[in-house]
Amino acid sequence: MQRYFLPNDQFDDNKVKINQDDAHHMIRVMRMTVGNRIICCNENGQAALCEIENISANEVEASIIEWISEKKELPVSVTIVNGLPKGDKLELIIQKGTELGASKFIPFIAARSVVKWDAKKGAKKLERWNKIAKEAAEQSHRTIVPVVHTPVSLKQLAELEKEYTYKIVAYEEEAKQGETSNLHRNLSSLQAGDSILVVVGPEGGLTEQEVSFLHEHGFTMCGFGPRILRAETAPMYVLSAISYQTELMR
Amino acid sequence: MQRYFLPNDQFDDNKVKINQDDAHHMIRVMRMTVGNRIICCNENGQAALCEIENISANEVEASIIEWISEKKELPVSVTIVNGLPKGDKLELIIQKGTELGASKFIPFIAARSVVKWDAKKGAKKLERWNKIAKEAAEQSHRTIVPVVHTPVSLKQLAELEKEYTYKIVAYEEEAKQGETSNLHRNLSSLQAGDSILVVVGPEGGLTEQEVSFLHEHGFTMCGFGPRILRAETAPMYVLSAISYQTELMR
Repeated sequence: MQRYFLPNDQFDDNKVKINQDDAHHMIRVMRMTVGNRIICCNENGQAALCEIENISANEVEASIIEWISEKKELPVSVTIVNGLPKGDKLELIIQKGTELGASKFIPFIAARSVVKWDAKKGAKKLERWNKIAKEAAEQSHRTIVPVVHTPVSLKQLAELEKEYTYKIVAYEEEAKQGETSNLHRNLSSLQAGDSILVVVGPEGGLTEQEVSFLHEHGFTMCGFGPRILRAETAPMYVLSAISYQTELMR
Repeated sequence: MQRYFLPNDQFDDNKVKINQDDAHHMIRVMRMTVGNRIICCNENGQAALCEIENISANEVEASIIEWISEKKELPVSVTIVNGLPKGDKLELIIQKGTELGASKFIPFIAARSVVKWDAKKGAKKLERWNKIAKEAAEQSHRTIVPVVHTPVSLKQLAELEKEYTYKIVAYEEEAKQGETSNLHRNLSSLQAGDSILVVVGPEGGLTEQEVSFLHEHGFTMCGFGPRILRAETAPMYVLSAISYQTELMR
């Protein structure tokens, strides 16, 4: 069933109002009619089964049939931090990472990030990234939309450590030296409600300075298996492993 | 270090000859010179550290310094079968799946595959897919290049069952009904040297008929977590879970 994420103020006791892009999608793209059913999620991650009652040019009104209880979210909150990559790689990371259950994405301006961050053009990019997260959340039947943050510096990244239960770094030098147990040790300790911050370098990898700075701030270096994963593949690996460990192994 | 996959007949006792695309890549793209070192893999998955001795217009000659022992391959052999998807999605599956350790890719002509397979145009596609696998294998430091097969029918797919120790199907209806233990049960039983066949539907999913036909042929339906994964994301999920289970948890 088609799913839409709506601001809380579009819900009232037993009705939902859908407008703008979402209404366009329902009316023009999906060609929905009165009587069709949809799922509407509010900003608190609650999902309501709704039935369309009225369609006007730019707005759809639906009645709430029932609030449903869904277990779609990972039992832990995962933030993916990516060294700002080239081209549209971050779009792929956000789309796939959202399907795989990430809660938040924070790009980080790494020493080897080739792309420079331009605050002016950046606002548009950020808007686009958040739109990709919303669409992927709808398609993958999430109950929350992950947030994409403005890029941070290494120092700002290290300051985030206090907010997280676990902090890990995907580090291919560890993988080359055959480090295989840190990721499992961290993931198997995760408890429901914990939060984990995962740092992945840009295409050229993290520098030794970045790695030791993060190490000093309580981050654990982890190998993600013996093969060299691209910058956009490592987040998919860790999110899949977290789902496997916390959702399928228990 | 840059890595090249070469036919066995380009190796002799202590020399390697590199020509065609690979020589072009070394000379024009990487601008390598005499004395540079590379890794050359033969068709048996063996890797040699080599040093460039001579560069002519279209050929590079290198001496073998030593054969090195590398553990880059998953301890089990994984074949990914994808319902033939639209557009260039299979390219993404092959590139990411190769990084994540797959041994073989077999597209399958599913009931809901929108794309028709044209044997004539197909040859060119197959060549391109195999090239993507080779490049991804080089980049991710694999010692073998996964093979991409010509698409098979459902019947041919079912006949493959005898060749594999484990046969599983990613089935979102199982996931919706909260099936969470089949994937872990299968993966935790894997022993080194085992082989596993993983079937993933096309964009519209597998039909009930396809699912029951595969079930009758010994395939196990598995949920890959509670979120709905796209056709190209499910192979990444299962390959990451296999690596985590067989390489990091042991």
